[in-house]
Amino acid sequence: MTAASGQRAMNLPVAEFQPTAENQPATGIVTAFSATETAAMDAALEAALRGPRGANPLVGAVVVDANGRQLVTGFHRGAGTAHAEADAIAQAAAAGIDLRGSTMVVTLEPCNHCGRTGPCAQAIISAGITDVIYAVDDPHDPAAGGAATLRGAGIRVRSGLAAGEALELNRHWFQAVAAKRPFVTLHIAQTLDSRIAAEDGTSQWISCPESLADNHGLRGRIDAILVGTQTVLVDNPRLTARDASGTPAGHQPLRAVMGLRDIPADAAVRGEDGRVLHLPTRDPREALSQLYTAGIRHLMVEGGSRILSAFLTAGLVDELIVYLAPTLLGSGTPALNGLGISTLAEAQQWEWDQADGGSVRSLGRDLRLHLRPQHTESLEPQPLRAGAEPAMGGY
Amino acid sequence: MTAASGQRAMNLPVAEFQPTAENQPATGIVTAFSATETAAMDAALEAALRGPRGANPLVGAVVVDANGRQLVTGFHRGAGTAHAEADAIAQAAAAGIDLRGSTMVVTLEPCNHCGRTGPCAQAIISAGITDVIYAVDDPHDPAAGGAATLRGAGIRVRSGLAAGEALELNRHWFQAVAAKRPFVTLHIAQTLDSRIAAEDGTSQWISCPESLADNHGLRGRIDAILVGTQTVLVDNPRLTARDASGTPAGHQPLRAVMGLRDIPADAAVRGEDGRVLHLPTRDPREALSQLYTAGIRHLMVEGGSRILSAFLTAGLVDELIVYLAPTLLGSGTPALNGLGISTLAEAQQWEWDQADGGSVRSLGRDLRLHLRPQHTESLEPQPLRAGAEPAMGGY
Repeated sequence: MTAASGQRAMNLPVAEFQPTAENQPATGIVTAFSATETAAMDAALEAALRGPRGANPLVGAVVVDANGRQLVTGFHRGAGTAHAEADAIAQAAAAGIDLRGSTMVVTLEPCNHCGRTGPCAQAIISAGITDVIYAVDDPHDPAAGGAATLRGAGIRVRSGLAAGEALELNRHWFQAVAAKRPFVTLHIAQTLDSRIAAEDGTSQWISCPESLADNHGLRGRIDAILVGTQTVLVDNPRLTARDASGTPAGHQPLRAVMGLRDIPADAAVRGEDGRVLHLPTRDPREALSQLYTAGIRHLMVEGGSRILSAFLTAGLVDELIVYLAPTLLGSGTPALNGLGISTLAEAQQWEWDQADGGSVRSLGRDLRLHLRPQHTESLEPQPLRAGAEPAMGGY
Repeated sequence: MTAASGQRAMNLPVAEFQPTAENQPATGIVTAFSATETAAMDAALEAALRGPRGANPLVGAVVVDANGRQLVTGFHRGAGTAHAEADAIAQAAAAGIDLRGSTMVVTLEPCNHCGRTGPCAQAIISAGITDVIYAVDDPHDPAAGGAATLRGAGIRVRSGLAAGEALELNRHWFQAVAAKRPFVTLHIAQTLDSRIAAEDGTSQWISCPESLADNHGLRGRIDAILVGTQTVLVDNPRLTARDASGTPAGHQPLRAVMGLRDIPADAAVRGEDGRVLHLPTRDPREALSQLYTAGIRHLMVEGGSRILSAFLTAGLVDELIVYLAPTLLGSGTPALNGLGISTLAEAQQWEWDQADGGSVRSLGRDLRLHLRPQHTESLEPQPLRAGAEPAMGGY
């Protein structure tokens, strides 16, 4: 199963489809998108999955010529890098492909103002592209208006193609933007039996060097990393992003410590750059609100058990990364210490996330598992496995 | 990395190489095996991994002609099915390939007496094969003597090629045979946070229907399945092998219940066929001894926590299968309840098992993880991850 087909297999909120003046013919039947345009959008959705989740949404872009041939495919590689449209246009330029008269098919409305990278609307106009099809509107105020700019330049703009899939692709990113809170990645480094420390508190290192390096790579891409005061007092982590030789990465996350106890004056987390923030609360919602105010758009929650459990219980985790070591401890600190769940029917349901290299990867001897909360809104109520598998009931 | 190269990457007990009169030339330098014979043995080792672990060892066989061309490849699909040599010969017969004058390269000494299937030595003789190369001797008394039978029929027999790899391939099977105990497969159906039941005891079903079906398929291949008396009293399982429609499989495992408490007269595990065995002990070693005496050569340990932990603590698990559901409970019954480990350096180390479809598979929404105890005998002592990854120390 490809990543894209995995997305398609789900029940999607088709009610999200927004017909526009252009794609709504007089008959009232929506027939505005050709088979090649639909195929291009499929390819754009699939390309989008190659990027990482975080402060920015996953976006893919495919440019097709007048004959429907796909000329170039771009995707967004995360905050601070080129948007999907700019990526596609840059690839075309590098390959000497003339995009004049072509159609840009993209999973999100092109931006007007791109912050660290140039505005995509202007890049599309400059490339001589004459048609733009996008799936869903950009929900941000600062970036909104890309479609209007394009239309103002005489480009034919249509939207709503595969809108359900595009919303589903970035479901939690849209939710975080709407709630004005950071996108939250939760990270657990555990044994097969889900222990994050042995009985005597030793935990360095449950994960293999490759997993640690992967985690440090993630630290170099996020805005902030969060632990509890308990973790600071017990493990005294630095929480900086470093490469295998210990050299600090160019980008360092803000170091956030959550909890009512003070951070010791000599705690390693204080570092030397002053980029540490104490959040004197036990409420994840309050912590996220303070971080958002501080400009944080992508947060990684690192631990320990209490903090992980608090964010999960509150339903405030958008992405879950588990580094699973092929080891057993049998006792010690469990990764989670309670989610307010008393019976199996209430278990938190997650789904495998195909984005950013796939849902399951080998990292050295570990497995890296990548999940996101299961989409439930448009699913039928499910009697748990008992109903799905009656014949084997009563094992 | 291929399965075979994964095996090769380990430190192997090269001292196991047994030079014979044939492969030990006068110079004292071992040069008896050609490059094509070595390549055939590599292919046989890789083919062997396609079979399942259990009462019989993994075995692969490749037949090469006088020019070194690989004519046919066979492997053993588990107890009750054709041995690798017979599989290869049957494939050749079906394809109309004449094996007269060819060389059979096989990872284990061909058997003289094969129980449920015919003796391989005779099949090799009948096929007109004139050379046999095998890696290691069959450790069984009843089957031993295959090499002698072949030599008696005028076939040139050599052994010791890739002996280290062949022993490593079936390391735990050789240990179980030597200890006169069943080969032990341990099965855990758990959430991401390694819970096997919620707080209220509900556990049906943590795994998805595809995982349940896989487990029932395994039940249909083993000699016995074992649970603790606690599981019988709480869950009242039937422990029979059934297909998705509830129809019993043709082969049913013996149902073993371990523990000092009696099995209730109306317990489902009693069934109607009388194939239930009460093992009134808490000692896994004693349970295995009783099962071996009862003719059991492949046991699956099903649960619960106490039983799983007892077998793991005793080091009596040869194969570990984990059905990992993408769900979180946060509390409830942990899969394991103590392995006598107090610090991380003592953690049980496992390695991914490539046999039988690979180490990680998707089963419906679950992951099926397949592991075996890490090989430690010939490895250098390892300072745990702290030493391996000094630069990131003190995270």
